Amino acid sequence: MSKKNNQDKLLIFALGGVGEIGKNMYVVQYGNDIVVVDSGLKFPEEDMLGIDIVIPDITYLTDNRDKVRGILITHGHEDHIGGLPYVLRHLNVPVYGTKLTLGLIEGKLKEAGLLGDTKRILINADSEVQLGAIKASFFKVNHSIPDAVGVCLDTPEGRVVHTGDFKFDHTPVNNQYADLQRMAEIGSGGVLALLSDSTNAERPGFTPSESNIGREFEDIFRKSQQRVVVATFASNVHRLQQVINAAMATKRKLAVIGRSMVNVVSIASELGYLNIPEGMIIEPEEVGKIAADRVVILSTGSQGEPMSALTRMARSTHRKVDILPGDTVIIAATPIPGNEKYVGRTVDELFRLGANVIYGPGSVSGVHVSGHGSQEELKLMLNLMKPKYFIPIHGEYRMLRQHALLAEAVGVEKENIFMLDNGDTVELQGGAARKGSKVQAGNVLIDGLGVGDVGNIVLRDRKLLSQDGILVVVVTLSKQDGAIVSGPDIISRGFVYVRESEGLLEEANRIVTSTLNKLMSDNVNEWASLKTNVKDALGRFLYEQTRRRPMILPIIMEV
Amino acid sequence: MSKKNNQDKLLIFALGGVGEIGKNMYVVQYGNDIVVVDSGLKFPEEDMLGIDIVIPDITYLTDNRDKVRGILITHGHEDHIGGLPYVLRHLNVPVYGTKLTLGLIEGKLKEAGLLGDTKRILINADSEVQLGAIKASFFKVNHSIPDAVGVCLDTPEGRVVHTGDFKFDHTPVNNQYADLQRMAEIGSGGVLALLSDSTNAERPGFTPSESNIGREFEDIFRKSQQRVVVATFASNVHRLQQVINAAMATKRKLAVIGRSMVNVVSIASELGYLNIPEGMIIEPEEVGKIAADRVVILSTGSQGEPMSALTRMARSTHRKVDILPGDTVIIAATPIPGNEKYVGRTVDELFRLGANVIYGPGSVSGVHVSGHGSQEELKLMLNLMKPKYFIPIHGEYRMLRQHALLAEAVGVEKENIFMLDNGDTVELQGGAARKGSKVQAGNVLIDGLGVGDVGNIVLRDRKLLSQDGILVVVVTLSKQDGAIVSGPDIISRGFVYVRESEGLLEEANRIVTSTLNKLMSDNVNEWASLKTNVKDALGRFLYEQTRRRPMILPIIMEV
Repeated sequence: MSKKNNQDKLLIFALGGVGEIGKNMYVVQYGNDIVVVDSGLKFPEEDMLGIDIVIPDITYLTDNRDKVRGILITHGHEDHIGGLPYVLRHLNVPVYGTKLTLGLIEGKLKEAGLLGDTKRILINADSEVQLGAIKASFFKVNHSIPDAVGVCLDTPEGRVVHTGDFKFDHTPVNNQYADLQRMAEIGSGGVLALLSDSTNAERPGFTPSESNIGREFEDIFRKSQQRVVVATFASNVHRLQQVINAAMATKRKLAVIGRSMVNVVSIASELGYLNIPEGMIIEPEEVGKIAADRVVILSTGSQGEPMSALTRMARSTHRKVDILPGDTVIIAATPIPGNEKYVGRTVDELFRLGANVIYGPGSVSGVHVSGHGSQEELKLMLNLMKPKYFIPIHGEYRMLRQHALLAEAVGVEKENIFMLDNGDTVELQGGAARKGSKVQAGNVLIDGLGVGDVGNIVLRDRKLLSQDGILVVVVTLSKQDGAIVSGPDIISRGFVYVRESEGLLEEANRIVTSTLNKLMSDNVNEWASLKTNVKDALGRFLYEQTRRRPMILPIIMEV
Repeated sequence: MSKKNNQDKLLIFALGGVGEIGKNMYVVQYGNDIVVVDSGLKFPEEDMLGIDIVIPDITYLTDNRDKVRGILITHGHEDHIGGLPYVLRHLNVPVYGTKLTLGLIEGKLKEAGLLGDTKRILINADSEVQLGAIKASFFKVNHSIPDAVGVCLDTPEGRVVHTGDFKFDHTPVNNQYADLQRMAEIGSGGVLALLSDSTNAERPGFTPSESNIGREFEDIFRKSQQRVVVATFASNVHRLQQVINAAMATKRKLAVIGRSMVNVVSIASELGYLNIPEGMIIEPEEVGKIAADRVVILSTGSQGEPMSALTRMARSTHRKVDILPGDTVIIAATPIPGNEKYVGRTVDELFRLGANVIYGPGSVSGVHVSGHGSQEELKLMLNLMKPKYFIPIHGEYRMLRQHALLAEAVGVEKENIFMLDNGDTVELQGGAARKGSKVQAGNVLIDGLGVGDVGNIVLRDRKLLSQDGILVVVVTLSKQDGAIVSGPDIISRGFVYVRESEGLLEEANRIVTSTLNKLMSDNVNEWASLKTNVKDALGRFLYEQTRRRPMILPIIMEV
């Protein structure tokens, strides 16, 4: 059953997360034991038209399902847990996570109807878990969500460390310190291979502390004579806590709006990660009944997402809360690449309503810091772990590359650094590492309920349709002599607006008619030729006239 | 002919450029005399599928064509000159510009076949032009293209100043200083209304000097043991000069690649704006014949544009130049919002080829500075001009808003600041200003050769098609009894890949058949009802099965 050539070797690879930001899924295999770290999703690239989300291709895991001992989850962000509902449907294995992480996962599994069937195992930073020949232990890290851990995997071949997403915050909110001592101890024990977060590898210096933001919030809340709206990532529980603390200090009540914000506030306070004073929370409906300078509204929409609460407030289409002139809106987040325009539009609309908007890069606004460590922190992690081999993960290629340069700078041997694509394996045996054969990896596109039924052809068609639309040409020919019985009728969708282009379409009609007549007189009557000729002649004519290339769909019938 | 209510009044408005970045076109009218400042294009927003460029709606100008005295162009960037080929086709009026600006315009007009018919009038910073009752004069400003000017319009109602795009560069390349003395003099004369560039109104401090970059180039060229590629905006002639100077200082030859780069280098050196030493330029074909450390390649593609020279080099598909491991590539530009991903991908590909890539924000890379002034410079301009009324222009709403706050901060009365949308007018009479009635303004979308034939319906269809594709359902019914004679045939484009979804499409077929049979037995036989019912039933079924909503196009024929 087990493949011989993997036996007694240590294999490390990514099914998602290298050469991209998103769908993190890393695999460590020793002989017949496979441990998976994280199971994330990715939001579609702009050329994946109509796609909702993207998850990793897990063929390798389903092909080796008897070997998979479990999925360890480092923290509860979508790019680390969002793939679970899809993965667990095909691979029923135990999921390990800390309290908040499991809390967030359970919400997802419930929605997907998978909660009952999934074994969930609670861990904390002191847990040890034996997964076949691999022993997993954990260490606390700082990140933009509480309860984030790194993973230490002791295998017969040596120790593999996966940092998870991390920064070093020396003044963390709620005293949730990263466990430097444990990391140092892991490093002292000898690390064979380190996999480390490359998100901010392009950024010099240190990432500022999350607790800087609390002071800023309090200052803004105090100065504002009216309502304050704070939009941030729902999962950034430490930031939510700081909003609550600042509201407390400035005697404001708190309303929570937006589905994911309500959800996270409820889970996090239930599990003890969010400390909300008695009587502070009010319902959104009550906002209007309280003096404007006694209210804070905590909202989703920091990315300008079209359907989010903040966007609806900005467009005056929110059912419960209006933005009034003089209100203050804090956007405590940086746009994820690709979202800049959405956020910009939301800011524009808020300004148009007369709001005072605090936004922009954290260095200007003072109300956002990254959850990922910058170059100095990445070097600190490298020096704590002192790995023999280094694999930069969690980043676009350029970020992995910059991280590799940092590793070289702190003394990792250049030839011991592995730049991987998804599916590339590193094989370790007898203390030596080399690139192994590639395993199947890639994007699985999810559109609606369909998984994997939208492939390159469908995407190419969507792309073509989006550029110049489609023309459907319907003609009926006589079975006897091939003469045109009815049509051609030309239907345009997304090409031109018919009423403004009558002349063009009439001429197109003539082209189709004369093309078909010519073919008939030449005794060409195979369907395929007829269609190809109509397509070519019409396509050429339209390109000459308009410099556009709509998709042309000839429908030729016989009676 | 002239509208009475405009007589003896001064009208100021934008047909493009406020509430957006791009398609700048400002109008100053006194009585029967209209002066237009700039005539730009905008690149399409991401929801304008298939659109090539966007220009302003100039109905107001064509309706008042006899009053338009001329178009003054502040500088040669696309967002200020790119609309000219379209505008001049409908409005044959003189165009005024400085030497380089006219040089760039002439290239465009030649391509459009409009060069012979267009009166072009060369101005310099000392020119005075009488345009009916309006006297135009000019002042030198610093910008990321040489020969940029601001415009001073003296009208019987008072003085209107339009800054053009500007920064204050106290150590400009080629000693092209902004004319502070002239600006101060204009201010001393009393400025009724100032229109000023808001692009960087969100950015604190000063924008660094262009000349900083020259030192950085020289340093990089000197350190590199191999070829250096510099990608930047072709129109940034001062930066091109600095590449040439650094090449000179490090004894490298220069190859120029990319259509617009070749074009600008040729125009700018011909007109004396670019100083290229004898024998420095080599043909791209010669790059391979010269020692790698003796070559610099100047290239387009700093925005990661898919067809540009740099992108093709990064993908190893450029016909003449390959990137070799160890080459240095400098991307001397910041991504325009929306282009971040393209630039990122190009950087990734260059790193994969083994190049050393210098990129990122100017503050990190040292090889880019903005051409627009930051907050302190905007305040300096306001204080030089001391306007009574202020109209922030050239920016998204949030930038205009920040600029308005700066104006307030330096002492412009709050009620004297006008936040305009395109088409909003400011009327000035007897020293007082108020918002006037709105004139027609908006986006004219250009797709291929078509101008204005792609409207909301076509764009909505393209959007729908791009999300879930289209299903064409073809059925032939009997004229006698309405029975199905052939079909239904279902054709999918961009919905699902047929081979993977046979079951779904077979079931869809049955739904169409049973819907039609039911309608027939109920004696429903109007075309419209048949089509609507098929659409609804099939749409409902597909949404239930897939959570997708493809466009459904029923084609029902009778025989």
